[in-house]
Amino acid sequence: MSGTDIPKEQWAQVVEKTGGPVSYKQIPVPQPGPDEVLINVKYSGVCHTDLHAMKGDWPIPIKMPLVGGHEGAGIVVARGELVKDIELGEQVGIKWLHGSCMNCSFCRTADEPLCPEAQLSGYTVDGSFQQYAIGKAAHVARIPKECSLESIAPILCAGLTVYKGLKESGARAGQEVAIVGAGGGLGSMAIQYAKAMGFHTIAIDGGAEKEQMCKELGAAAYVDFKSSKNVVEDVKKASFDGLGPQAVLLLAVSEGPFQQASHYVRSRGTIVCVGLPANAFLKAPVFDTVTRMINIKGSYVGNRQDTAEAIDFFRRGLIKAPYKVIGLSKLQDVFHLMEEGKIAGRYVVDTSK
Amino acid sequence: MSGTDIPKEQWAQVVEKTGGPVSYKQIPVPQPGPDEVLINVKYSGVCHTDLHAMKGDWPIPIKMPLVGGHEGAGIVVARGELVKDIELGEQVGIKWLHGSCMNCSFCRTADEPLCPEAQLSGYTVDGSFQQYAIGKAAHVARIPKECSLESIAPILCAGLTVYKGLKESGARAGQEVAIVGAGGGLGSMAIQYAKAMGFHTIAIDGGAEKEQMCKELGAAAYVDFKSSKNVVEDVKKASFDGLGPQAVLLLAVSEGPFQQASHYVRSRGTIVCVGLPANAFLKAPVFDTVTRMINIKGSYVGNRQDTAEAIDFFRRGLIKAPYKVIGLSKLQDVFHLMEEGKIAGRYVVDTSK
Amino acid sequence: MSGTDIPKEQWAQVVEKTGGPVSYKQIPVPQPGPDEVLINVKYSGVCHTDLHAMKGDWPIPIKMPLVGGHEGAGIVVARGELVKDIELGEQVGIKWLHGSCMNCSFCRTADEPLCPEAQLSGYTVDGSFQQYAIGKAAHVARIPKECSLESIAPILCAGLTVYKGLKESGARAGQEVAIVGAGGGLGSMAIQYAKAMGFHTIAIDGGAEKEQMCKELGAAAYVDFKSSKNVVEDVKKASFDGLGPQAVLLLAVSEGPFQQASHYVRSRGTIVCVGLPANAFLKAPVFDTVTRMINIKGSYVGNRQDTAEAIDFFRRGLIKAPYKVIGLSKLQDVFHLMEEGKIAGRYVVDTSK
Amino acid sequence: MSGTDIPKEQWAQVVEKTGGPVSYKQIPVPQPGPDEVLINVKYSGVCHTDLHAMKGDWPIPIKMPLVGGHEGAGIVVARGELVKDIELGEQVGIKWLHGSCMNCSFCRTADEPLCPEAQLSGYTVDGSFQQYAIGKAAHVARIPKECSLESIAPILCAGLTVYKGLKESGARAGQEVAIVGAGGGLGSMAIQYAKAMGFHTIAIDGGAEKEQMCKELGAAAYVDFKSSKNVVEDVKKASFDGLGPQAVLLLAVSEGPFQQASHYVRSRGTIVCVGLPANAFLKAPVFDTVTRMINIKGSYVGNRQDTAEAIDFFRRGLIKAPYKVIGLSKLQDVFHLMEEGKIAGRYVVDTSK
Repeated sequence: MSGTDIPKEQWAQVVEKTGGPVSYKQIPVPQPGPDEVLINVKYSGVCHTDLHAMKGDWPIPIKMPLVGGHEGAGIVVARGELVKDIELGEQVGIKWLHGSCMNCSFCRTADEPLCPEAQLSGYTVDGSFQQYAIGKAAHVARIPKECSLESIAPILCAGLTVYKGLKESGARAGQEVAIVGAGGGLGSMAIQYAKAMGFHTIAIDGGAEKEQMCKELGAAAYVDFKSSKNVVEDVKKASFDGLGPQAVLLLAVSEGPFQQASHYVRSRGTIVCVGLPANAFLKAPVFDTVTRMINIKGSYVGNRQDTAEAIDFFRRGLIKAPYKVIGLSKLQDVFHLMEEGKIAGRYVVDTSK
Repeated sequence: MSGTDIPKEQWAQVVEKTGGPVSYKQIPVPQPGPDEVLINVKYSGVCHTDLHAMKGDWPIPIKMPLVGGHEGAGIVVARGELVKDIELGEQVGIKWLHGSCMNCSFCRTADEPLCPEAQLSGYTVDGSFQQYAIGKAAHVARIPKECSLESIAPILCAGLTVYKGLKESGARAGQEVAIVGAGGGLGSMAIQYAKAMGFHTIAIDGGAEKEQMCKELGAAAYVDFKSSKNVVEDVKKASFDGLGPQAVLLLAVSEGPFQQASHYVRSRGTIVCVGLPANAFLKAPVFDTVTRMINIKGSYVGNRQDTAEAIDFFRRGLIKAPYKVIGLSKLQDVFHLMEEGKIAGRYVVDTSK
Repeated sequence: MSGTDIPKEQWAQVVEKTGGPVSYKQIPVPQPGPDEVLINVKYSGVCHTDLHAMKGDWPIPIKMPLVGGHEGAGIVVARGELVKDIELGEQVGIKWLHGSCMNCSFCRTADEPLCPEAQLSGYTVDGSFQQYAIGKAAHVARIPKECSLESIAPILCAGLTVYKGLKESGARAGQEVAIVGAGGGLGSMAIQYAKAMGFHTIAIDGGAEKEQMCKELGAAAYVDFKSSKNVVEDVKKASFDGLGPQAVLLLAVSEGPFQQASHYVRSRGTIVCVGLPANAFLKAPVFDTVTRMINIKGSYVGNRQDTAEAIDFFRRGLIKAPYKVIGLSKLQDVFHLMEEGKIAGRYVVDTSK
Repeated sequence: MSGTDIPKEQWAQVVEKTGGPVSYKQIPVPQPGPDEVLINVKYSGVCHTDLHAMKGDWPIPIKMPLVGGHEGAGIVVARGELVKDIELGEQVGIKWLHGSCMNCSFCRTADEPLCPEAQLSGYTVDGSFQQYAIGKAAHVARIPKECSLESIAPILCAGLTVYKGLKESGARAGQEVAIVGAGGGLGSMAIQYAKAMGFHTIAIDGGAEKEQMCKELGAAAYVDFKSSKNVVEDVKKASFDGLGPQAVLLLAVSEGPFQQASHYVRSRGTIVCVGLPANAFLKAPVFDTVTRMINIKGSYVGNRQDTAEAIDFFRRGLIKAPYKVIGLSKLQDVFHLMEEGKIAGRYVVDTSK
């Protein structure tokens, strides 16, 4: 089944060869297979991963030429013959996980992001930096009609990722969670999700400006790693009984915090690694890890259910992600700002411009 | 309440000063407080920790002079006024955890081994290398009357520790667990507990003799780290679908295996650290830990419920721990053998000799 | 150790024989045992259970004569020789569970309320309707010094009970929970705990006045069982996707809701029974329970950890329990009002009057 | 892609109208859709549900005319264009759950049997009582090549169902599980799965013959409800500490045991309902359910992961299901025996005869 008025050609930002840059050009509109939908992408968030994809500096093989983007929000305009649970006109989202085999031991247990055959949007298949993109019906995010497409875009990757990390922490409502890198783009969403989940956040970041932002977003305490004389002691003191937070969410982009967290997490506590500093290693003393029963774990992107949940928190008005809208044609400019570390909040591209 | 025929003096092995040696001498029989029992220790296992205690080479402060020992099995001969649920004549066990505060956040959640006020048998209080020892009624292990006191002694520390580690792995019946150091004293018990819990064990150790032992005890597969050209690949191949075991139990006494396990554990799998190689560190690449959602955790000694369960597996005849009995007066000889690495299985001292 | 200025005699409300009434009289101040504290009770909440205790209409044997009360808040004025973690002058609470054996399979796993030897305050031992009461050090609730003793009293039973029920529901932040009897004393606290835990509440009760209260306390939706033509359909409609709430908390005092809940709970959802209507039975069709995988469970009072958590939510200002203060000497009047069903909110007695 | 030598016509047993009987006749071989495989069914188990389907006495709407059967084992002979992870010649199984929407909240969380759009083999779509059947690639069971197709057939429904029920019980290795109806077809498999999972089984059924069978299969104890004077007391006595088993698996086909189990299950224990006696109700006293914190739940068929696990226990030789092979043409005879209650073990039809 297929809607009318679907053009043959569309505007897209294409990485022609590894290293970039992106070129803004017209390319054919793709056709959905039996289990797929065609999405008229309206907005797409821009993520650091898109820069990694263009540069090709990650260890995962990449499609080339490539249309990047994995925070797309749009409207279904055509669907394959097997697709029965999405109507034309419905709002859907494109996220990092494009598709998976649906029957390996990971897919069978709702861990489809770990599927060895996983396909990645804007990485192993074309993504959302185009006006018309393909999505797998079983994987596209369902976006309720009351949600604005431009403001929800950052939820589809950044929001989902921190929400998943918080779920993986195993923390329960009423417990304390330290968020490292709380003042950044991921961090500011993490504070809001943590609050909505009933956690008490100890925000860790640098500087007074970030302190103010973290507290406004709902952090119960703030530890400034720039001015603190002893971060470990200060984080422990910030917890109610001085024994440290039950969980730590590591959103940092440098290696140090990954090796420091085991010193202030509570005994029996959990450290969740989400950030991906280049070539970084976890490190922790065996004696302390054993006798204090510390848990260190990695959390990748959320599955389809996590996506629905992360969106539902947004729908209920509990999460506000600051963003700026810019035309798709200006994507290279956003990458420049990103490389210069000049972005606060998220850029969202409007595919009509 | 108090039994008759309790002598005033008893034989004990006493560490007079840090560094040792132990001296076999007569000391007074202690008196139980209101919440305590007096135990006529019959047998006590000898653990590497006892050697550490004598030498004082662990970072935890130690009582001195000290009666060591924390795998004691004996009979209650007197009890304090508050003790209502243990009768004189009952069989009980002395384990590493002597006592705890009973109302901190750890004690309240059955994690009493993590209590900041925990007292440790044969370390911060006198232990089981004597004929009459004190136990806290709430903490002494209950030993069913059908169990032999000499053969159960090693269960009270070694058995309990590996059983706890297997529980902490989160593995379910039917899943695969790699045991590193499977051919050692802890390992041989771990294989038996793993089998009784329905796990399929991939035993990892060195040499053909250990292979035979591991398989006889119930291991489904064996990887010989001495002869293997690629341990990581061989462990993965030994798993049913080639994706690696769901859990890894690290009983090794050197650092290498702690850093290798993350390479062969299954995605979403759990690595449990139990062994305590001196000054060792965990280390794992952040990228892989995150994108494969690997979980690394420490497991210390079991709590009181774990103790009851570990004993129940023994009671049902599912666990056989090889041991040799020797007189308490010969304890120093056991320490010598231990230092020379000449002990296979467990030594159990008979306090009557 | 013992404070000064402890009188020999005190005022108390005593049930002399089953059936009541209570008589206000002077009785001796008790002496704490080695593992106990003596508490100068300042305030005590009055619970329906106290009325049952006086009347003796429950199937559990009762102490007689009896000082009732199990929501006491006061100050420690003396302690036994074994008590090391409570200082004189500390604020503590008396709750339903007075003591337990500390080493049965329930006590060992933090389920001490299920201990076969459990002692119950104001039921099998004297409770908080007196000026000086005994508490077990391991069981008395620790009340942070910033908490007011009169306002925290109702948390110690009513708050704890609904908080425990919500925990037992297994609901996660972001999920929907129906609370049956949401407009009553337990219900009004349950709505607040549910909100603090990140749940979305579908409040079920009768009448417009209760609707207003429930919504003010944070309920996301309200179903009026008095005016609804089809409660089952209305509850399902009130859930986001029309499939019903993930959990149901049954605080009702009549049998009907216990048999209705399985019709509107979501498949895989959990029904938690907390209310205790006399002689009531759960009932659910086997076919539907199986094919929809419904879970029905009972939740009793919280354990010591639940108590600490319930108090912590209160300390952070997230729970307000409406109450009226009256002199201890007027307790019989409160019982009269209770029998007439004329109490909204909680009565708290001041032991100094 | 499609294999050669697929005929146009095949033999099948067709229910022409509700009530039956089945008629053995030639019908067209179906064609797989893009996400489907065509399976050359070799063997199919016969289940009571097939009789219900023919008679149409269940409340779920049914396809008519219908080819029944949902325990089919065969070989893939053709596959649709989207199917990439199943090769022609692979062994697969047809189970009760034929397909599901793959993106509702149940499918997203690996609870696809609860999908509101679930399709049921031999009930809402044609099943395995034919030589060539359609399967959804994402749902057909993968059968390892070392497994015999005729002996594995009963695992695909009966084995899977009891394994799922045992998983849902939440019991851990070393705990005690009562199995009600332990001597029947489901029960005999349940005892074997329970043993493989490390549980200690208290088998409940009637008669000395069943006692012998249950014990041979691995039950630790047996309670004969026919000769017992007090089943509740006898089950409790059969547990190690007399407090009752942690879990109860209800496979009974009459209502009584569903209402009796709450009296002997341990406090905090779980009762899992699996059997589906007609028009039966669960019933339990609210007071006891609450104060003993009992959990009553339903368990339906397993999901795809449970299927893989149930098969893996079989592959390892831990489960033996007694069965008799008969030609597909004799299916009506099997139904007659079933109606007369004359079947012990499972009948498996050979589609070539």
